[in-house]
Amino acid sequence: MADAITLPAAKLEAFAAAIFRAAGMSQEHARNVAEVLIWADLRGTPSHGVQRIPRYIEIIDAGEMNVRAAIKVVKELPASLLIDADRAPGQVAMRFAAAAAARKAKAGGVAFALVRRTTHTAALGYYTRLAALEGMAAIAGSASWPNMIYHGAREVGVATNPLSIAVPRPKGEPMIFDMATGVVALGKIGYAARIGRPIPEGWALDEHGNPTTDPARAVLPLPLGGPKGSGLALMIECIASLIAGNPIVAESLEDTEEGKKHRQNAFILAIDIAAFGALEQFGASLARTIAGLKGLKRQDGVAEILMPGERGDRELEERERSGIAIPAASWDAIGRVAARFGVALPQA
Amino acid sequence: MADAITLPAAKLEAFAAAIFRAAGMSQEHARNVAEVLIWADLRGTPSHGVQRIPRYIEIIDAGEMNVRAAIKVVKELPASLLIDADRAPGQVAMRFAAAAAARKAKAGGVAFALVRRTTHTAALGYYTRLAALEGMAAIAGSASWPNMIYHGAREVGVATNPLSIAVPRPKGEPMIFDMATGVVALGKIGYAARIGRPIPEGWALDEHGNPTTDPARAVLPLPLGGPKGSGLALMIECIASLIAGNPIVAESLEDTEEGKKHRQNAFILAIDIAAFGALEQFGASLARTIAGLKGLKRQDGVAEILMPGERGDRELEERERSGIAIPAASWDAIGRVAARFGVALPQA
Repeated sequence: MADAITLPAAKLEAFAAAIFRAAGMSQEHARNVAEVLIWADLRGTPSHGVQRIPRYIEIIDAGEMNVRAAIKVVKELPASLLIDADRAPGQVAMRFAAAAAARKAKAGGVAFALVRRTTHTAALGYYTRLAALEGMAAIAGSASWPNMIYHGAREVGVATNPLSIAVPRPKGEPMIFDMATGVVALGKIGYAARIGRPIPEGWALDEHGNPTTDPARAVLPLPLGGPKGSGLALMIECIASLIAGNPIVAESLEDTEEGKKHRQNAFILAIDIAAFGALEQFGASLARTIAGLKGLKRQDGVAEILMPGERGDRELEERERSGIAIPAASWDAIGRVAARFGVALPQA
Repeated sequence: MADAITLPAAKLEAFAAAIFRAAGMSQEHARNVAEVLIWADLRGTPSHGVQRIPRYIEIIDAGEMNVRAAIKVVKELPASLLIDADRAPGQVAMRFAAAAAARKAKAGGVAFALVRRTTHTAALGYYTRLAALEGMAAIAGSASWPNMIYHGAREVGVATNPLSIAVPRPKGEPMIFDMATGVVALGKIGYAARIGRPIPEGWALDEHGNPTTDPARAVLPLPLGGPKGSGLALMIECIASLIAGNPIVAESLEDTEEGKKHRQNAFILAIDIAAFGALEQFGASLARTIAGLKGLKRQDGVAEILMPGERGDRELEERERSGIAIPAASWDAIGRVAARFGVALPQA
């Protein structure tokens, strides 16, 4: 058996969508979810790509992800929305939120959409990108259940809640910043375990609270910069979950029934750049800023100074040409899900 | 000579205000600036406290900080403001912005204030705190000139631009998160140099790009988490400076005349918690979240799990009782400024 199977993105996307369709989603929702997963795979972030499919099916089976979600705007003010996602796939809820925030920001200068009761939001940069394509600067955060050390503790207390910020560029793709509040995204540790590669020291602790480089024993991810990373994760929980009235950390640490369920909350802020000044001026200033940074003297061994998201942009270009490689172990797990739903495996 | 002089906060604040008054500020502006500096000193962040006074006088002398600034709202939309600070002290401009954002958020659910052409914004948490005292969740960032390594470079490219988020608590002081995007705030390295204490490895590089623990040689601060810290700093520049039409990084790296001047831009977003649900509910959820985190099993040697800003809250309580200690070297520098303006030194 090969170590990996390589497929063109379009074929893989259609396959993923067919699985979600067979699992009960509408055609549109199935496509939305597949598209965001493939985008992550294309950008070299497989931890947020199609390898998530088996887990998504698990949370559908558990009744935690709703394949027939009816997303509702439950409160709307001139510059804000509270959206109840009805446990929709995060991709569906967040696309809805990004579009709504961008639309409203055109009237008020900014708009803030709060998304309550969604599920795995996946690659957060996808949604700030959507708003940036509309001329917005966008800031998004999402809150999940505890999977990371809170500074000073030896058990998990907060999630590796990500923060993404995107701005439009004069032409082409937006510049997308997307960071987890852990030293690394949790998915990267799981991915290292699946491909059998050690992780650097300082990423995580083992179950006894000792440093480890074995991804299989690395069960306690560490926050970025100690109190900074875990503090930022907590503040994202405060904004995404507590304002929305759907606390995740509290329910989980109190070990309630609700706290055992997979669910997420999120927010996205859209800032209409043109409300403050000409978008062209912004683009010109950004181009000057990038040129200045790229012209800096480099450290030894650094071939080029990269902007946020630039590595992913290049991975995407490369994989759009050469296809997406899925490790055999992940492919097997996806294949079992496909077989269950009677979806044919795509051929490379 | 003593190593430090210790003064009650009120006395030190009146003294600082008298200097700014003598330097040409209105009584109100002088008090505003002094109050924010003293707040930082009280909270154990002397790098943002009264030791900045000599530097402020330098930038007043250079015409970079305007003691007679006329702050103007140059654009106003339902949920956003563009404020031209006319080179006002950052403390004056940011208080104005925080109050305006909180006021407007009460109508639209959220409001975003962008502050163009201000000067040193000092302790950013002071302004998110002001908004939080009005029932807001607040997010602020400020952008300054390059003083930190951009990931991969061996010369400075971005600033240690801070990010602050504050939320109200059921009673008492808000919970205030405030982080610099560097491994540590630049002022901490300067402070270590002034008190002659070595810094930990990993905080900064020397002028040749080598690690150092000597704060006097540590001229190139490193970003938090490499590309994460420098990327976040860049995105804060994009939002605070480029949308406002006052680029700092580009002008500085292009070595223009404008780029040599001290100036900052900043933003503050206010989210009216009550627009989404009951403030009491938010407070109750926050209290549960904090209780859950404080109850986590602790790492060896950790006496207590602390919330964002909690260490500062305690330092403040302690210093309100026992006074603020200023290292002799800093006090001498402040004394020279006071003498120039004919302001009498306070007695301990």
